[in-house]
Amino acid sequence: MSAKPLLHQLVESLQCLPGVGKKSAQRMAYQLLERNRNGALRLADVLQESMRSIGNCEMCRDYTETRLCTICSNEKRDAQMLCIVESPADIAAIESTAGYSGRYFVLMGNLSPLDGIGPDEIGLTSLARLVSEQQCQEVIIATSATVEGEATAHYIKAMLTNIDRVEGSEPIRVTRLAQGVPIGGELGYIDQSTLSLSLANRQDI
Amino acid sequence: MSAKPLLHQLVESLQCLPGVGKKSAQRMAYQLLERNRNGALRLADVLQESMRSIGNCEMCRDYTETRLCTICSNEKRDAQMLCIVESPADIAAIESTAGYSGRYFVLMGNLSPLDGIGPDEIGLTSLARLVSEQQCQEVIIATSATVEGEATAHYIKAMLTNIDRVEGSEPIRVTRLAQGVPIGGELGYIDQSTLSLSLANRQDI
Ligand SMILES: [Zn+2]
Ligand SMILES: [Zn+2]
Repeated sequence: MSAKPLLHQLVESLQCLPGVGKKSAQRMAYQLLERNRNGALRLADVLQESMRSIGNCEMCRDYTETRLCTICSNEKRDAQMLCIVESPADIAAIESTAGYSGRYFVLMGNLSPLDGIGPDEIGLTSLARLVSEQQCQEVIIATSATVEGEATAHYIKAMLTNIDRVEGSEPIRVTRLAQGVPIGGELGYIDQSTLSLSLANRQDI
Repeated sequence: MSAKPLLHQLVESLQCLPGVGKKSAQRMAYQLLERNRNGALRLADVLQESMRSIGNCEMCRDYTETRLCTICSNEKRDAQMLCIVESPADIAAIESTAGYSGRYFVLMGNLSPLDGIGPDEIGLTSLARLVSEQQCQEVIIATSATVEGEATAHYIKAMLTNIDRVEGSEPIRVTRLAQGVPIGGELGYIDQSTLSLSLANRQDI
């Protein structure tokens, strides 16, 4: 450790956390020292263990400290459905709805040729292999409704349509999350493009 | 470590930080894993070292990992002035004004008899010894302008007035931070008691 007082080093290090500036880092440091040294020591242990052991699931690329994540290694999860998401946080969000029992694949981003992020960087080679080897019948592309998310979805859709599958198997159904007015959304506050889309895709009730 | 996935443990542990709920903890965990594993490992080291080594300065009670803090061990600091504050954060605030070159004493709270916090808990025995042994000529009581802060200030003032000092030394001057309208403060937004006080303590210009 350098010659800087430890407290300064602590305040500095805490600022590696997203959203934590100098003021909050100071408040955190004082509060941990004063009231929760045990919690801080446990956080140090878990941080160390996590940064060293958490890698990516060999099948879906979600974060896990084992070869396969808890979802991929759960045989009760439906292997016929595969939901493609941008990030591990999206899996957590979808799991929290408890409305999906299939499996996932995490892109860890979106295609972005200008930033050097091509198909390989978002794991599309593994995805193609996974889909052609598994009994997968439906792929839900749940990338964001942004320009990048849409472009990535189109690319994946095209790739999956041309994929070689085990002889005799059905063609894969490729779907996208429904878009429209969010529940509780007031029309006056919804952007025009969402509103046009909701109107065009109106459903019988 | 328990059988819970490490990522869950990480999200849980991060919530020991003040102001960090489940959502921010998740965002922090993902961001560290994705972009700053080295920063996280360094944070773990510094947390460990800090929680184990940071104690209180023998003289002023500020946090330090050495016997005396950097201020108390700095002979250029004026030993004739002693500023009494509630917390280490207050020292940082006063130091940032660069307008004070004396020493400090940290109460680590205020008197609060109902919570069992008496003179000993806020270090008044050490304070009395410090003041009677040192060449201290002025004590600035910089506790908060709250009921507790005021009560503590009055108690300390009474204690210092009755203190035994080296024979022949002057009586100690005891002062309190000036109160009034903050710089840039608009009168319409200032509470009535501050305003009355500012009026009563008006100064010639
Ligand atoms: Zn997995
Ligand atoms: Zn000190």
